[in-house]
Amino acid sequence: MIEGVHFRLDPGWATPAEVGHRALAGALSDLAAMGADAGEAYLLLGLPADFGEERALELVRGADELAAHLGAAIAGGDVVGAPVLMVSVTVLGWAERAEQLVGRDGAREGDLIGVTGRLGAAAAALAVLDGRAPRTPGSEAAIARARAPLPRLAEGRALAGAGAHAMIDLSDGLASDAAQIGRASGVELHIELAALPLDAGVDDVAAALEQPAWELAASGGEDYELCFCVPASGHAQEHVERALAALDLAPVTWVGEVRAGTPGVRLSDERGHAVRIEGYEHLR
Amino acid sequence: MIEGVHFRLDPGWATPAEVGHRALAGALSDLAAMGADAGEAYLLLGLPADFGEERALELVRGADELAAHLGAAIAGGDVVGAPVLMVSVTVLGWAERAEQLVGRDGAREGDLIGVTGRLGAAAAALAVLDGRAPRTPGSEAAIARARAPLPRLAEGRALAGAGAHAMIDLSDGLASDAAQIGRASGVELHIELAALPLDAGVDDVAAALEQPAWELAASGGEDYELCFCVPASGHAQEHVERALAALDLAPVTWVGEVRAGTPGVRLSDERGHAVRIEGYEHLR
Repeated sequence: MIEGVHFRLDPGWATPAEVGHRALAGALSDLAAMGADAGEAYLLLGLPADFGEERALELVRGADELAAHLGAAIAGGDVVGAPVLMVSVTVLGWAERAEQLVGRDGAREGDLIGVTGRLGAAAAALAVLDGRAPRTPGSEAAIARARAPLPRLAEGRALAGAGAHAMIDLSDGLASDAAQIGRASGVELHIELAALPLDAGVDDVAAALEQPAWELAASGGEDYELCFCVPASGHAQEHVERALAALDLAPVTWVGEVRAGTPGVRLSDERGHAVRIEGYEHLR
Repeated sequence: MIEGVHFRLDPGWATPAEVGHRALAGALSDLAAMGADAGEAYLLLGLPADFGEERALELVRGADELAAHLGAAIAGGDVVGAPVLMVSVTVLGWAERAEQLVGRDGAREGDLIGVTGRLGAAAAALAVLDGRAPRTPGSEAAIARARAPLPRLAEGRALAGAGAHAMIDLSDGLASDAAQIGRASGVELHIELAALPLDAGVDDVAAALEQPAWELAASGGEDYELCFCVPASGHAQEHVERALAALDLAPVTWVGEVRAGTPGVRLSDERGHAVRIEGYEHLR
């Protein structure tokens, strides 16, 4: 995560602790998407000359608290001088057997597509922090969630165990992340935008922006929910719902199905019309 | 390694392949200093918008060739946008037993201090590339070595096995790196500057700079040789020399001894006078 590219270091935008938290969250989210256990994390800080030791320690504490919360451990790292603040995190994940891990290339025609939790908070928060939408009680909830996202490690393991055979974390936005599963698997993921579960405050912000709420939900990066595919036959859908409910984890919403077609994603609005959504744009 | 801080990306200074090589070499050198085996490396690239895919692939090839040469493997990584080129490498090292690993805190009064290989090429190359010293056949040799340093992994393992009980790699320069052993061990490392083994071309460049060659050898970073301490009693000195010669590894030069005193390093010139040398300065 690089200042000016992935975040702005400004109390309204992100505190040093939140930068540490988010850098580690982004790395752990990739493990979640494979159904892996989180192991050791290694943290590299590039610090501008005027950054100061206190803020550097605050940043590390932000990462450390998230690691402790998720059963990961920061096992090493390094500090170098840098023109802008940058945080590079390497995490190792583990599985008892390699076959337990889920890739992006396992989606098959007929599969059902699910997502965990709720979407759009990150895009809504960005719009408010950018000054494109006003602060409201609803948008504050989205901002709070976006500032400290929680990678879905437990959900990823449960989904892998319950039969998900393709999975990705939503770091660039559902539209572009789901397309990665489609391309890797050689199938077309058909997603109904009206079915997307919206996070608190996303409706508010979308109204202020005069755009459909599903646009924020499908295009915003850094929600760190999981998108996955399960076979429609058998009882995978039921297994998934039961496994997540039994562990009191994030709920699942079924948002579409996998078909033959152009490898990638096909998004359709409430009237069934195809919609084109660009992937997540970083600050620049 | 960050452009403008640790290197300049300019054909005369460093090609993309050399940046990849050096970033991995610097990370592996830390493993060498512990006597560890090199395991998996994870490579993060921060690429400016105009960097281009071809140069990015060249950079990765530079790292990959070094990894193959040393029995390491690049097992993963990531690519992000960045304001300047940056390469962050995380390497994992392994040992059969934790007790085989050597730290910085094991130096004891009476120990002998050794260094592997020859010193000063990196500082000499920097002076030439900076335009402070002329290009000569000698300085070209120093530049060639500095552009593609080889971390001393085999030497580190052999030294650990032969009884070295404190070790560090010379990434910031002997003066400041040896001081780290001294501080960690609570002892004073007495080093005779006239005893330092000089790399080819260092004499030439030092003459042009009108400064003693040992100043380049003791202050220049990124030589990636090892500095280590062994007990003077027993036969550790002989074991070390024999172990490295048997494996046809870099020779060892004995450069001083460990005494009680102010924790850190004490450097003395050919007349026995104390000399103060500042640590390696990065480009800024």
